[in-house]
Amino acid sequence: MKFIYPFGGSAPKPDVDPDKQIVGGKGLGLQVMSKIGVDVPPGFTLTTPLCQIYAKDNDLPADVWKSVRDNVARIEKDMGKVFGSSNDPLLFSCRSGAAMSMPGMMDTVLNIGLNDTTVEGLASATGNERFAWDSYRRLLDMFGEVVLGIPHEEFEQRLDKVKEDAGATNDVDLNTNDLKNLCREYKAVYEHQKKQFPTDPYDQLYACVKAVFGSWMTPRAVKYREIHNIKNLLGTATNIQTMVFGNMGDDSGTGVAFSRNPSTGENVLYGEYLINAQGEDVVAGIRTPQPIQQMKEVLPDCYAKFVENVDKLEHYFKDMQDVEFTVEKGKLWMLQCRNGKRTGVAAIRIATELVKEGICTESEALLKVEPRHVEQLLHPTFSPEALESNEYTKGVVAKGLPGSPGAAVGKIVFTPARAEEMKANGESVILVRETTSPEDVGGMWAASGILTARGGMTSHAAVVARGWGKPCVCGCSDIIVSESNKTVTVKDTNVVFKEGDVVSINGATGEVINTAIEVKTPSLKGDLEVLLGWADKEQGVMKVLANADSGPDALQAAGNGAMGIGLCRTEHMFFCPERLPIVRRWIFHTECLDDLDHIKHFQRSDFKDLFVAMNGMPVTIRLLDPPLHEFLPRPEQVQEKVAEELGFGKDVKRMLDRIESMHEENPMLGLRGCRLGIIKPDFTKMQVEAIMLAAADFMEESPSTAKPRPRIMIPLIGSINEYKDQAIIIKREAERIRNERGVDIPYEIGTMIEVPRAALVSNKIAALKDDEDGKPLCSFFSYGTNDLTQMTMGISRDDSNGFIPKYLELGIFDDDPFQTVDEEGVGYLMKLSATLGRSANPHLSLSVCGEHGGDPKSIAFFDTVGLNYVSCSPYRVPVARLAAGQARV
Amino acid sequence: MKFIYPFGGSAPKPDVDPDKQIVGGKGLGLQVMSKIGVDVPPGFTLTTPLCQIYAKDNDLPADVWKSVRDNVARIEKDMGKVFGSSNDPLLFSCRSGAAMSMPGMMDTVLNIGLNDTTVEGLASATGNERFAWDSYRRLLDMFGEVVLGIPHEEFEQRLDKVKEDAGATNDVDLNTNDLKNLCREYKAVYEHQKKQFPTDPYDQLYACVKAVFGSWMTPRAVKYREIHNIKNLLGTATNIQTMVFGNMGDDSGTGVAFSRNPSTGENVLYGEYLINAQGEDVVAGIRTPQPIQQMKEVLPDCYAKFVENVDKLEHYFKDMQDVEFTVEKGKLWMLQCRNGKRTGVAAIRIATELVKEGICTESEALLKVEPRHVEQLLHPTFSPEALESNEYTKGVVAKGLPGSPGAAVGKIVFTPARAEEMKANGESVILVRETTSPEDVGGMWAASGILTARGGMTSHAAVVARGWGKPCVCGCSDIIVSESNKTVTVKDTNVVFKEGDVVSINGATGEVINTAIEVKTPSLKGDLEVLLGWADKEQGVMKVLANADSGPDALQAAGNGAMGIGLCRTEHMFFCPERLPIVRRWIFHTECLDDLDHIKHFQRSDFKDLFVAMNGMPVTIRLLDPPLHEFLPRPEQVQEKVAEELGFGKDVKRMLDRIESMHEENPMLGLRGCRLGIIKPDFTKMQVEAIMLAAADFMEESPSTAKPRPRIMIPLIGSINEYKDQAIIIKREAERIRNERGVDIPYEIGTMIEVPRAALVSNKIAALKDDEDGKPLCSFFSYGTNDLTQMTMGISRDDSNGFIPKYLELGIFDDDPFQTVDEEGVGYLMKLSATLGRSANPHLSLSVCGEHGGDPKSIAFFDTVGLNYVSCSPYRVPVARLAAGQARV
Ligand SMILES: [Mg+2]
Ligand SMILES: [Mg+2]
Repeated sequence: MKFIYPFGGSAPKPDVDPDKQIVGGKGLGLQVMSKIGVDVPPGFTLTTPLCQIYAKDNDLPADVWKSVRDNVARIEKDMGKVFGSSNDPLLFSCRSGAAMSMPGMMDTVLNIGLNDTTVEGLASATGNERFAWDSYRRLLDMFGEVVLGIPHEEFEQRLDKVKEDAGATNDVDLNTNDLKNLCREYKAVYEHQKKQFPTDPYDQLYACVKAVFGSWMTPRAVKYREIHNIKNLLGTATNIQTMVFGNMGDDSGTGVAFSRNPSTGENVLYGEYLINAQGEDVVAGIRTPQPIQQMKEVLPDCYAKFVENVDKLEHYFKDMQDVEFTVEKGKLWMLQCRNGKRTGVAAIRIATELVKEGICTESEALLKVEPRHVEQLLHPTFSPEALESNEYTKGVVAKGLPGSPGAAVGKIVFTPARAEEMKANGESVILVRETTSPEDVGGMWAASGILTARGGMTSHAAVVARGWGKPCVCGCSDIIVSESNKTVTVKDTNVVFKEGDVVSINGATGEVINTAIEVKTPSLKGDLEVLLGWADKEQGVMKVLANADSGPDALQAAGNGAMGIGLCRTEHMFFCPERLPIVRRWIFHTECLDDLDHIKHFQRSDFKDLFVAMNGMPVTIRLLDPPLHEFLPRPEQVQEKVAEELGFGKDVKRMLDRIESMHEENPMLGLRGCRLGIIKPDFTKMQVEAIMLAAADFMEESPSTAKPRPRIMIPLIGSINEYKDQAIIIKREAERIRNERGVDIPYEIGTMIEVPRAALVSNKIAALKDDEDGKPLCSFFSYGTNDLTQMTMGISRDDSNGFIPKYLELGIFDDDPFQTVDEEGVGYLMKLSATLGRSANPHLSLSVCGEHGGDPKSIAFFDTVGLNYVSCSPYRVPVARLAAGQARV
Repeated sequence: MKFIYPFGGSAPKPDVDPDKQIVGGKGLGLQVMSKIGVDVPPGFTLTTPLCQIYAKDNDLPADVWKSVRDNVARIEKDMGKVFGSSNDPLLFSCRSGAAMSMPGMMDTVLNIGLNDTTVEGLASATGNERFAWDSYRRLLDMFGEVVLGIPHEEFEQRLDKVKEDAGATNDVDLNTNDLKNLCREYKAVYEHQKKQFPTDPYDQLYACVKAVFGSWMTPRAVKYREIHNIKNLLGTATNIQTMVFGNMGDDSGTGVAFSRNPSTGENVLYGEYLINAQGEDVVAGIRTPQPIQQMKEVLPDCYAKFVENVDKLEHYFKDMQDVEFTVEKGKLWMLQCRNGKRTGVAAIRIATELVKEGICTESEALLKVEPRHVEQLLHPTFSPEALESNEYTKGVVAKGLPGSPGAAVGKIVFTPARAEEMKANGESVILVRETTSPEDVGGMWAASGILTARGGMTSHAAVVARGWGKPCVCGCSDIIVSESNKTVTVKDTNVVFKEGDVVSINGATGEVINTAIEVKTPSLKGDLEVLLGWADKEQGVMKVLANADSGPDALQAAGNGAMGIGLCRTEHMFFCPERLPIVRRWIFHTECLDDLDHIKHFQRSDFKDLFVAMNGMPVTIRLLDPPLHEFLPRPEQVQEKVAEELGFGKDVKRMLDRIESMHEENPMLGLRGCRLGIIKPDFTKMQVEAIMLAAADFMEESPSTAKPRPRIMIPLIGSINEYKDQAIIIKREAERIRNERGVDIPYEIGTMIEVPRAALVSNKIAALKDDEDGKPLCSFFSYGTNDLTQMTMGISRDDSNGFIPKYLELGIFDDDPFQTVDEEGVGYLMKLSATLGRSANPHLSLSVCGEHGGDPKSIAFFDTVGLNYVSCSPYRVPVARLAAGQARV
C-alpha cells in the first residue's frame, strides 16, 4: 500500500487520481494541481489508512518515517533549501484533511522547522528579521496549542502582556524586539506547563504528523462524526507542504478567488489579493484587499498564469473553483483548490453555463445543484444583508422550529377571522396561534406567515404552510399566546406583543424578529427550468406529481412542472365557510340525504376544476380521510344559533353530548380513512359519483380535448377485506355512472399503503380480483409515508416534538423521520410491500404521497424502491424534480 | 370415489371410519353406531363432495341416483317393507349434516314416501288412521316449506283455520277428519303457489336430496359461513334414514339422554323419555316426560340395551354422549349420537373421570375441556335459573360490551371516592363512569363491578377489570352518565338510576339489569388442578406467567399456577393516594431528587414483595411506560390547595399551563415508554436501583432461601439506539449495586417488542453487545401484543369500538384483534421478529405479555411462533395453562 503521495516540484504525475478517501479533499486538490501543471509548493500527503494504524499503534511504521525523510530530501533538492538549515532554511506547514471537511480535528501548524538557530537563518535569508521572529512566535503558539494541548489563554495572556509593555494595540505594532520577547515568554509557557518544544525540525515535523492523526479520535471529533452520522471515512490524511511567503516585497502577495461569482454565478473571476502580505494580514483587516482583476496590472505575468490555472482547474473538476494562492518574489504558487460554495441562483446559473460551455454534461450539471439551492429560489427570503443587519440579529426575540421556509413580515393577529378581515384591507398579517386546526385554514391562507407556540415540524400549521409555500414558525415554546388577551408574551422576558404589532418571521431558521425586516422575492429563472428539464429527461426517472386540493393549487403545481396530482385531499375543500355547516349537518345526521347531495354538488365542481387544470394527466383523489370530529365546532363555539343551524333545535346540551360522544383518545388511529367509508358507504358512493360526474361533465363540454384521468384512492387500508369492500363499491358506482352517461372515462382504483399491516399483505391486496369480471381490483399503491412512519415507529407526529429534538441531539436518530424517511424501518416495509405487490401484479403503479415526497434524501431512497412517481406539495415540485433526476445520475 | 355410505341393517361394516369431512357429523355417528353393533334404522349418507358436484351441475350423476335406488332396495329387504307400497310402506327421513353444526341450511323432511295412496297403507298397517294422516300432513308442510320454499305462513294460516273450524286449541286436539281436511287445505296451498307436490315417493326423495345440497349455497348459509369464518368445509352431506315410530303403543316410546350429567359431570345417565310418543310430543309439552331411569321398569330389555349402547359409544368416542332413541314395538333404535354439550364444572369432572376410568389418556382429556369451561369456574356468575328468570330477562335495561366476565350486584356510585367509602361500610357497589382513568383504580378495586358508557373491550376499565377478575360492562352506549347530577339515564327511555339504586351487571354478556339478581360464586375444584397439572406436563409446553403489579396480585397468580411474573407495570403502584402527590411533584419538578428518592423508597419495598411472592421464579419488571400526563390531576381538579401541594404556591394558573403544555394529541404514540427513560435517565437509574436494592435486601434477610430473579424490561423500543441507551444505563447501575452490596443477584435485561419497527430490527437488537465486556445486551423479548396490534393495524384500542363491532358484523374482521391476535399481520411481525431475534441469539427468550397472553386461540398461535412463555392476568392463568397444554397435544 502506498502511504505517501508526493506533489509539486519533481513529484511524479500518476495517470490516475488517488482516491479522495485515501488522500482527503485537500490532498486530492494538491495531487491534481501538481499533475496538470499548476505550480504548488512541493509537499506530500500521508494517507488516511495511516490514521488507522496510528490509532492502533500510537505510532507510524518505521518505513513511513523513512519515507517522510526521503520526501523532505526531494523537496530540499527541488527548492534549493535545507530543512533545519541555519542558512535560508526550508519550512513546512502541516494540515489535516479528510475526505470531507470536518471540524473537531487538528487544523494547521505553520513554519515548522524554525528554532532559535534557524530563525536567524530565515532572518538573514529574507533580510527581514521582524518577519522571521514573527514566524517563530507563531510556530511556538500553534505547536503548543494544537500539538501539545496547551490552553490558548496561556499564550494569549503573554501576548497581551507584551503588547501592553510595548504600548501596542495590534499585533502588527510589535517590533522585532517585542517579538523576540514574546518568543521568550512563549517558551516560559512551555516550561510552566512542563512541556517540551522540540528544537529539532524533524522532531517538530513528526510530532505534528502524530498530532494530526491523533486528533481523529479526540472526543470532540468522534462526537462530531457521531452527531453528523459520518461513518464511512477511514480517517484523516496529513498534508506536509513547503512554506511560501507572500510578504517578501512588492513582487509578492497573497489572495483568494472563485472562478465565477458565487452570488450570481456570472462567469468572471471573483476574489481579492494583497501585495506584500500573508494570509493573516487579510484576516487582521489592517489593509484592504484589492479586487483580483487589479492584479493584472501589478503582476501581469502572475495574473495571466493564475487565470490559466483557474481555467485548467475548472475544466478538470468541471465545476466552479475556490482557490488560494501566494506569490513569492514574482513566482505564483497555488496553495489549495476546491469546488466553491455558492448561492442557489449562482448554482443554477453555473450548472447550466458549464453545460453551454461544453465543460460538463447535462447529467453532471444536475449534481452540481443542491436541493437547497432550488429551495432558495422558491421562497421569499430575507436578503443576506438583512440577515446580518443589527435590526435582525438584535431583533430576534424567540426561536421556534423552521416549519415552512421563507420570510414574512406583518401585523400580529390572533384569530383566523381577523386575519381574513385585515387581509381584505390590504394588510399583511402574521397569524399567531397556540396551535392551528383545520378550521383555521381560511385565516392561514390570508396570512403572510404563521407562528404557533405548539406543534412539531409536521403539525397542522407546518404541513399546511409547506403545502402552500407559506412561511411558518411552529412549536415556538419561547412564547405564550393568549387569544383572549390578544397578547404574545416572550417567556422569561418582559417582551409582550399586542395585536397589530409588526413582527417578522424566518421560516428557514425558526426565528421571530421584533420588527419589519426587508423581504426579497426571487422569481423562477429560465436557467432553473432548463436544469429541471434535464432532470426530467434522465433515464427511468421517477415522475413528480403534486399534492393539490383545488383548481388554483393544481395550476400552480402544473406551472412548477408537476405531471399530475398524486394526492387530492378532498376534505380540504370542506372547510370554506359556506360548506362547513353542510358538512357538519351531514355528520350529525348522516341519514339526511339532502346534505349529502349538497356535498356532492360542490365536490363535483371541485373535481372538474382539477381535471381541467391537469387535463390529460392523472388526478389521484383520496376518499374522505380525517376523523369526522375534526370538522365539528369546538365545544366552546357551540351556542343556540349553531345548534339550531345544525339541526339540534336550541338544544345546545344535546349537541354538546354528540360532540363529546365523538371524542377519540388517539384520533390518528381512530374512526377515519376507509373505516369511515365502510361504516358510511353512502359517503364513498357520493364521492365516487361526484368524481365520475365531474369527469363526464368535462368530457361532454369539451369532447375533443377533455381527457380526465381520475384515480380513486382508498386511505388507511389495513386488511384485504377493507380494500375489497371499498373497491367494489367504487367500481360498481363508477361503472353505473359510465353507463348512465355513456362516456368512456378511464379510471383507476388503488390504495394508500400507510398502515404497517397493509404493507405486510401487499401481495394479497394487489392480487384481489373482481368476482364478477375477474379483473384486478387494485392498480396502484401510494405510500402514505407520514402515517406509515407514525405507525411503524409508534410516534405521533403532533407530539414528536417532546422527544425527537432530544433524540437528534443524543444521536439516537440521525434524522427526523418525519422529514427524511426512516430507511431501516419504514423503508424496509416499503421495499417489502413493493416486492410483494409487484410479485402479484408486475404493472402495479407505486408512489409516495407523504411529506417525504418532497425531501431529496428520501427521494434518493424512493428511487431504489422502484417507485413510479413521488407526489409533493406544489412548491416542492421543482426540488423533487431535481432530486429525482439526481437519483438517476 | 365412494359417494354413498350405507349404515344399519345389512350395511357392510368397514374397519376405518369415514372422514367426518366426507360424511358429516351426523353421518359419522350413524356409521360408527352401525359398525359397533348399535342398532340404527337403516339408511345411507350421500357425501359432501356430491354437494360440490350439485353446485356445479344442479344435479347428481346418474349412477348416484342409481345407487340411491340400490340402497333403498337393500333397506326394503332389511325392513321387510317397500318404499311406496300401498301396504305398510317404508318411509324415510332426509336430513342435512355437515362436518360441523351450522344453521342456515335445509333441516329435516320426515315421512318421505307418503301420498294419497300410501297414507292409507300406513293407516291400515299401523291400525292408526289419525297417525297416518297426521304424518302425511307433516310431510306436506315440511316438503312445501323446505323443498319448494313455500312461506311457512301459508301452511300456518290453513292450520289455524282448520283448528278454528274444529274448535281445537292444540294440534293434538285435531281428529282424523280434521287432519284429512288439513291435507286438502295444504294441497290447495301448493296449487295456489303453483307448485307441485310429487306423489311418486322417489320423486319426493330425489327432490329432498337436491334441496339439501342446494341449501348449502343459499345466501343465508353463505353469509353464516362468512360471518363465522367457516372456510374449510367441502359442503353438507345428506342423510336418508328409515322412519321408525315411537307412538305405536305402550311398547313404543322415544327419548333423549346424556351418558353423564351435563351440569355436574356425575357419571349417571341423564335424560328423559315418553312412552307411546314421537319426538314432537316432547316438544309440544302436552305430556311430561319421565326420567330415563324409569324406563328400566317399563321397558327393561330396551333399557339394558340402551345402557349398553351408551357405554359402547362413550368408549368408542372417549367422551360423554348425547343420544336420541326411539322404541318401536319393543325394538330399540338409536337415531343419533354426538359428543354432548356441558357446563364448565361437568367438562372438567368428565375429563378427569374419563382418565381415571381408563377411557382416555391425559392428553386426550385435555382436549375435552374448552377454555370457556375453565373460565366459568373462575368468575362469579348468575345461575342458569336466574338467567332465565323474568326478573332477569325483563330487567335488562341496557347492553354494553362484555368487558370482563362475571356477575356483580351492587349500589350505583359515580365516583371512585364514594365507591371506597361505601365499600368501607361493607356495601357492594357498582362503579358507573363515563370512562375510567388510572386515577380511578382505588374505587375500581373497591367496587364489585364496573360499568362504563364509553371505551372498548380493551379500554382502561375493561383491561384493569379483567386483570383483577372483576366483572365489567364497558362501552355501554345505551346509557348517559352524569357525574354531576349523579344519574344514569337509559337513552330513549325514561329509566333513570340515582346513586344508591341497585343494579346487576353481567360481564359475560354486557347486560345491565335494573334489580338484584342472585349471584353464584364457584370455587376452584380439585379436578381442575389435576387437569391443569396434565396441561403443564405436556412436552415442550409454553410456560404461563402472570401480569402482576403487587405482592397480593403475585400471590394470587402463584396460587393459580403462574411460573413467575411476565409483566409488572410498576406505575400501577403510583396511584395509591399517599404516593400520587409525590409522583406528581416529581413530574412537575423532575430536578427535585427528594421526590425521586421517595419514589425509589416505595418501589424498593414493592419489588421486594414481588420477589418474596415469586421466590425462585422470574419477576419481569417493565420500566415506566405511560405518558406522564396520565398521572396528573384533571384540570377541573386543580385548586389552590392542589397547586400548593404540588409546588406551584397558589399559582393555579401556572399549574394549569403546565398540565396543558403536557397535553398530547395521540398519547398512545407520544412521550412514553423508553422515550421517558431516554429523556429522563434519572428515572431509569432510580428504578433499576430500587429493583436491585430490593433483591439485595431480600437476599441479605434470608441468605439461604432467597432467590430473587429480576428481569428488567424496556418498553416501547423502536430502534437499536434506544435499546442500547437504556440497556447500558441499566447494566451500569445494576452492576454498581451488585458491587456495592456484594451480592450476586442474577438479573436479565430485555425489551418489549411492541412497536412494528422493533420487530423489523429484531436481529440487530438481539445482536447488541456491551462495548465494555463484549457480552450480549439483550436476553429476552416480550411481545406487547396490545400495542403491537394498535400500531401494526393502526387502530387505537380505546377508540376501536367506533368500527370494530361493525367490522365483525360485516365479516371484515373475523375476530376482534384486541381479543384474538391478528395472525396475518401482527402474527407475521412476531414470527419475523422471532426468527430474526433467534438468528442473532439462539438462547433469546421469547414471550407475550399482552392481553392476548390469556386468549386460547392466540395461545395456540403463539405456540407455533415458538414462544417460551405467555404472561396474562392472574385470573386467566388457569385458562392459559389449559390452552398452552392443548396447543401441544
Ligand atoms: Mg394518511
Ligand atoms: Mg405497551
